[in-house]
Amino acid sequence: MLTAVEPFGRNYLNSAWEACRLVAESPPDNLELEVVQLPCAFGDSIAELRKEILRVKPELVVSTGQGGSRPDITVERVAINLNDAEGADNKGNQPIDEAIVPDGPAAYFSSLPVKACTKALLKAGIPASVSHTAGTFLCNHIAFGLAHLIATEFPDIRGGFVHIPFTPAQAADRDRRPSMASATAAEALRVVLATAMSTSTDHSVTSRSTRLSPKSWLSRRSQK
Amino acid sequence: MLTAVEPFGRNYLNSAWEACRLVAESPPDNLELEVVQLPCAFGDSIAELRKEILRVKPELVVSTGQGGSRPDITVERVAINLNDAEGADNKGNQPIDEAIVPDGPAAYFSSLPVKACTKALLKAGIPASVSHTAGTFLCNHIAFGLAHLIATEFPDIRGGFVHIPFTPAQAADRDRRPSMASATAAEALRVVLATAMSTSTDHSVTSRSTRLSPKSWLSRRSQK
Amino acid sequence: MLTAVEPFGRNYLNSAWEACRLVAESPPDNLELEVVQLPCAFGDSIAELRKEILRVKPELVVSTGQGGSRPDITVERVAINLNDAEGADNKGNQPIDEAIVPDGPAAYFSSLPVKACTKALLKAGIPASVSHTAGTFLCNHIAFGLAHLIATEFPDIRGGFVHIPFTPAQAADRDRRPSMASATAAEALRVVLATAMSTSTDHSVTSRSTRLSPKSWLSRRSQK
Amino acid sequence: MLTAVEPFGRNYLNSAWEACRLVAESPPDNLELEVVQLPCAFGDSIAELRKEILRVKPELVVSTGQGGSRPDITVERVAINLNDAEGADNKGNQPIDEAIVPDGPAAYFSSLPVKACTKALLKAGIPASVSHTAGTFLCNHIAFGLAHLIATEFPDIRGGFVHIPFTPAQAADRDRRPSMASATAAEALRVVLATAMSTSTDHSVTSRSTRLSPKSWLSRRSQK
Repeated sequence: MLTAVEPFGRNYLNSAWEACRLVAESPPDNLELEVVQLPCAFGDSIAELRKEILRVKPELVVSTGQGGSRPDITVERVAINLNDAEGADNKGNQPIDEAIVPDGPAAYFSSLPVKACTKALLKAGIPASVSHTAGTFLCNHIAFGLAHLIATEFPDIRGGFVHIPFTPAQAADRDRRPSMASATAAEALRVVLATAMSTSTDHSVTSRSTRLSPKSWLSRRSQK
Repeated sequence: MLTAVEPFGRNYLNSAWEACRLVAESPPDNLELEVVQLPCAFGDSIAELRKEILRVKPELVVSTGQGGSRPDITVERVAINLNDAEGADNKGNQPIDEAIVPDGPAAYFSSLPVKACTKALLKAGIPASVSHTAGTFLCNHIAFGLAHLIATEFPDIRGGFVHIPFTPAQAADRDRRPSMASATAAEALRVVLATAMSTSTDHSVTSRSTRLSPKSWLSRRSQK
Repeated sequence: MLTAVEPFGRNYLNSAWEACRLVAESPPDNLELEVVQLPCAFGDSIAELRKEILRVKPELVVSTGQGGSRPDITVERVAINLNDAEGADNKGNQPIDEAIVPDGPAAYFSSLPVKACTKALLKAGIPASVSHTAGTFLCNHIAFGLAHLIATEFPDIRGGFVHIPFTPAQAADRDRRPSMASATAAEALRVVLATAMSTSTDHSVTSRSTRLSPKSWLSRRSQK
Repeated sequence: MLTAVEPFGRNYLNSAWEACRLVAESPPDNLELEVVQLPCAFGDSIAELRKEILRVKPELVVSTGQGGSRPDITVERVAINLNDAEGADNKGNQPIDEAIVPDGPAAYFSSLPVKACTKALLKAGIPASVSHTAGTFLCNHIAFGLAHLIATEFPDIRGGFVHIPFTPAQAADRDRRPSMASATAAEALRVVLATAMSTSTDHSVTSRSTRLSPKSWLSRRSQK
């Protein structure tokens, strides 16, 4: 299962949802895939995610969100039990310094193989890195909510969160921000889904070692 | 006429050439276009450019180059009479603090309508900005060489230089650099070519005013 | 109590220790202050921190570390139970994907008033922000170790972690990195110590609201 | 002679002027120094600069300006014949795409030894680099105006332009911008003045070679 959030704030689209739509149109081979849009609302988004998990009964959940100023796909490794919003969600709520789950743990680690995913992305020629913060707005909210659902209700599901850069058009409306074409971001999500499905134990390498060595760059000649 | 340079240094490709190749395969409508690869060599690149101009007799020359760490298409406004290379070119030459044309002027301004081009790019949803430095390596060398050829030998040609970000694969091999898909960069070059052909007087607006107003962002819904 | 780590890797100094040394020479008024240097070693640093806490019996512990590429003082809000080192510590150890405290919680939140501290820093004219990741090297290691000691052995102590940018000389040896003078960083630590001592309940404001309003900028005329 | 501009726009101070004030209070040894404030106005600033040059009859003029988002001291190598202002100057003028000197050259190179200055700054532990664009607002205006005065009226004077980062307080009022303490920036200007006075032929080295080698970093232990 793949999720993204509806557009929020003054965005006319959500880059993560654009990528997910393309994956829905052309999913990875041999993968039964449901693509779900969540509301941009604290609380409601997790309730809706739970409903969809009950309906779809997925093996794997990859939630995605728009990571506006990031230059690359970031595979989130940790989600924290904190809502701290600079702006309001689409229902007008703006929680500040509140726990997502009162009495819940301070954080959860992703159950995705974050380094294997990052390595597979870089090998595929898609800029990517492991991230240790998903912020404190709706992306972290959903990442934490998903991990909490897994920990408390759905122990057989694996899941995690991936941030998608702005689309080129979104970057064009701002001041020299990096961006990624939705086609590239969609391909990234296909790589993450395939890697997560086929990898049970994560690679134990440094983040820097997930990159191709300069000696291997020549292998890209064929994929350019 | 559209030019780009062959790959240099430890790059297995040149992002600007990749974009130009795609434009050659699918040029803008109603435009007779020659796409030319220049050698990555101080001196030789300008000599080759001159030879191609004599052969093609173009109305317009847009030269392009790889602008590695830039997040957007940058339309260069000025080229300076200076070679100052951090590394060697493909023939092993590394000029330091040398004039490109001894006794030439300190700089030339582009004869492209740089703001009209930038505005057209942003309207098309492609991140872009006007730049006031093309560096001091081969990109500036060619930008200056082209402007000098126009000023001294080919007064009827208009021309300028455009920087193209890394491809995603190039960014994936480095540390969190921004990138742009070659398909997007190719579309950018088509927009620049069409705008330059149809615009005789540049727009006189601030750089910031080349961006869409937030009110107009909704118009993007249809183009997303 | 104030702590910093000895220089590590190819650094001839540690910017956090330089700031702490200046605070030791000229501590805030009405504050009994011990300044302690910790070894740059996984495990040993926390063991040493525990020994010093037992010796000093502090009310407050502010641990600090070098945050090389950051432009401002970052007050860390969370520390995660993970060692994942890109390079070796000063004893040659490089843990990858290991828990700091096996069977410990995934993370701890700081018990410093992070927003009150940030607001006080900005009011004092020192660039600062709240951070939600201390990385996965020795800084996060100590931040987590300190929080775990507080949670398990020293419930009456409050404590947290603060990142200090490179010194100007360290930035001068690298490629256009931001920096902060040690005198400014030392003043920042004095502000953090004083604010943490006098604030029992953190401010509940958005991060952006910790900044002075443009209308209040004029008040800076007197402090410039 | 050292010049800086009065505060402009919504700035309550000008970081370059703050640095110049400190140099005026404590100038380099063996240097007769006049420090002059110029109005933040297109046209007027150059007229005032000319008047001061006639009054002071300096051997050397170093003009400075606020380079808001830059992390380091930037020694400008080139100034272009173009006013293109994103905002108005202090007299309400906002020239767009206008020549500074109609019929003047497209650009002038600095007559400061820009690499020797940069090398001396880095050796002194102050972050610095050579820059090839001073923008198109008042800084470039003054840099070009000074070079034009030298070229046309005062051939015995050497001069150039240096950008100064925000002060820490200015950065504290914005979103995570880099900054430099005024004391450090003032020391930088003393280094530039002394180097320019004592260097008749610029160093011919790559920009990267202006940095200390890692082997020499240990020499900093004594200057930290």
